[in-house]
Amino acid sequence: MSTTPCDLLLTADYVLPQDEERSVIEGGFIAVGDEKILAVGPRGRAGAYAPARRLDLGAALLMPGLINAHTHVSMTFLRGFADDLPLLDWLNNHIFPVEKHLTAEIVELGTLLGCAEMTRTGTTALQDMYLLEDAVIAGVDKAGLKARLGDGIFVFSTPRCPTLEASFALARRHAEIAKTKSRLRTGIMPHTVYTTTPKILESCKVLADELGLPIHIHAAESPAETALCLQNFGERPLALLDKAGLLGPATTLAHAVDLTDAELDRLAATGTVVAHCPRSNMKLSSGTARFEEMRKRNIPIGLGTDGAASNNTLNMFAEMSACALLHKVSGDPTAAPAQSVLDAATLGGARALCWDGLGSLTPGGPADIIALDLTAPNLMPMYAPASHLVYAATGHEVRLTVVDGEILYEDGRFTRIDAESLTTEAGKLKQWVLDKAGR
Amino acid sequence: MSTTPCDLLLTADYVLPQDEERSVIEGGFIAVGDEKILAVGPRGRAGAYAPARRLDLGAALLMPGLINAHTHVSMTFLRGFADDLPLLDWLNNHIFPVEKHLTAEIVELGTLLGCAEMTRTGTTALQDMYLLEDAVIAGVDKAGLKARLGDGIFVFSTPRCPTLEASFALARRHAEIAKTKSRLRTGIMPHTVYTTTPKILESCKVLADELGLPIHIHAAESPAETALCLQNFGERPLALLDKAGLLGPATTLAHAVDLTDAELDRLAATGTVVAHCPRSNMKLSSGTARFEEMRKRNIPIGLGTDGAASNNTLNMFAEMSACALLHKVSGDPTAAPAQSVLDAATLGGARALCWDGLGSLTPGGPADIIALDLTAPNLMPMYAPASHLVYAATGHEVRLTVVDGEILYEDGRFTRIDAESLTTEAGKLKQWVLDKAGR
Repeated sequence: MSTTPCDLLLTADYVLPQDEERSVIEGGFIAVGDEKILAVGPRGRAGAYAPARRLDLGAALLMPGLINAHTHVSMTFLRGFADDLPLLDWLNNHIFPVEKHLTAEIVELGTLLGCAEMTRTGTTALQDMYLLEDAVIAGVDKAGLKARLGDGIFVFSTPRCPTLEASFALARRHAEIAKTKSRLRTGIMPHTVYTTTPKILESCKVLADELGLPIHIHAAESPAETALCLQNFGERPLALLDKAGLLGPATTLAHAVDLTDAELDRLAATGTVVAHCPRSNMKLSSGTARFEEMRKRNIPIGLGTDGAASNNTLNMFAEMSACALLHKVSGDPTAAPAQSVLDAATLGGARALCWDGLGSLTPGGPADIIALDLTAPNLMPMYAPASHLVYAATGHEVRLTVVDGEILYEDGRFTRIDAESLTTEAGKLKQWVLDKAGR
Repeated sequence: MSTTPCDLLLTADYVLPQDEERSVIEGGFIAVGDEKILAVGPRGRAGAYAPARRLDLGAALLMPGLINAHTHVSMTFLRGFADDLPLLDWLNNHIFPVEKHLTAEIVELGTLLGCAEMTRTGTTALQDMYLLEDAVIAGVDKAGLKARLGDGIFVFSTPRCPTLEASFALARRHAEIAKTKSRLRTGIMPHTVYTTTPKILESCKVLADELGLPIHIHAAESPAETALCLQNFGERPLALLDKAGLLGPATTLAHAVDLTDAELDRLAATGTVVAHCPRSNMKLSSGTARFEEMRKRNIPIGLGTDGAASNNTLNMFAEMSACALLHKVSGDPTAAPAQSVLDAATLGGARALCWDGLGSLTPGGPADIIALDLTAPNLMPMYAPASHLVYAATGHEVRLTVVDGEILYEDGRFTRIDAESLTTEAGKLKQWVLDKAGR
């Protein structure tokens, strides 16, 4: 029998390709070549491939890497710096006073640390909006994860962008950089409706169309935001986005909590994507996104961690668990069933990042793969893999994280990130924050 | 300088003794001798002790082991067996049909697996109520954890107890066994108000007083329970407990969700303890316990995972995180602050188990200690240990679990539990469940 050469062959007791049928392959393999999935199937057929490297993982589960649909990865420098405070006290007296001193070095170190956490816990792609994203590009590039990112666009000036023109020039430059990097894509990222203006939103849409880029914006995060929009512009956030032409399948709304039935209908009609952030919404008391109402309307939903300042972890397993539990609080134990939450963290994330092929293991698609150790006591016995991934896994059962066929993490060892220098650098981040906060 | 001999000396960058002042010792040590804490303090004073074994943990955090205030540890055999279902469908069509075939072997294997998970994730003591607790005793004994336990007492017959007399005889026997085992204590455990009768509750109180044992009962878990009690007995659960004389500091109410202001006042006045189970309450849509209202009244609160069938993990770090986030959903981001949740998982657990000395590291107290690896990317940087323990830790950062000075888990290795045979045994559990369920 002739065999097909490939770069990497993985076998494991379970493979969850997140395909159309949501198959569960008991005893399966994945063949990887040229950064792509060559084949996925029952282990018996693995013999057709002659791999350069073969990993027989045994009691493990292979699945697509998780996708963090909304984060501010570099904000790990503020992880646990201020918690359990009223929103405005938290922002004005703790977060903003430190952020105003932000440097590229801090953003890059924070990004590396956040990427280490995500790599360790099985996230292979993220959507990021923050300040000084040049430094996020540098960090993500070192870590090897996939990212769609952009600097937030504001009506006021930021460290790198004194004017709107500067913001747009930066977005153009990032788009050019992304053409040279296969794991990097960018977007146009107006920060919110209330920190921009209707006119800026319109300009963002024009720029996004010109560059062929998607839009990523915080929207309808809380009733307070709605009140602010009504006060400043006389309209609710979604109406303002709609008027600016921003709703559609190439737009992701982060949070999307405070929405009426009619607004949900409008999201569904336009195919607009939601990046749902349950842990951040809970921690900041922002309100509860209407997950089941969105599902009923077939609104595409991704799952995001938000930043470490308001979570305080970038662990998508913790996010899945919070999502499945939160939506049952209202009284319906059948809400947010495990498979729907797993879908949001994979296939939904691909929609939020506007990145075809992510979120499932498909021949010809990118080889972004993770493996979980099924001998962890908390994952035994296993009746339904989706249930364990959502309700029982901590994320630290991840043994292997692969992006474009490249192993980034394997059994306790990062291949690109120097774990020891990370500890030193985290110490630097802490010292810098304490200095700037005058603590 | 003369030195004091001791069995074990631990040093680490942080020690959180959970003492009266909630001290955070940066650079600290713990000396252990004769199963007890000899001393806790700054590392500089460690030289006063001459240990048989010394562990310098470096970038780690030492703290008291967590206490699971309410669980059914052996139910790991049903972990993820049936989820996302309406309560009665779940119970009647999935859980009960399997449970009715229950054997001591299944209960013991399930207990061992649950204890492995708890040991791995830093829980050193648990309160357990289920069926065939002889087998739980056997499992907990092998695993080396501390437990207060008892068979549930019902108005109907159970596999081991055809009559109330048999139940009481069993409780007496368990109390005798506990006298021979330093890590084991028992309680009188009427299952609920609605699966017993007011008369049975009164008898339970008489027996508890005679044996000097505390009481542990599921109570006020949901509005449905309240409705059932009103229908069957014409009173709400708390009134029935009160009339039977069951309220007081030696009684722990598991769940305690559906309570009025007056009922909370009554819990406070009597010193009754609550075992709060946020993840189970969320997953089963039972309602939200009034954590802040309880705190305001100084009602002692422990934290429990409930069983793996309704959680689906026995991980107290996941429970702490859920607790802190859940109580902010109502709109107050200052609710359930990190330290209050950590207190519930330690000092509150000691109250729920009626076990003096647990939940803090105090000279003369039991040496139940855990250590977390602070180089895990998700725990860096660290500004406030309590915040990280509640919001950022997964539980898998635990490097060391010690009970009565005995190391039960250290850097990936269980000392008592055979991890390899656990995998085989989990396979047996699964096969047994599938057989009994006719799947």
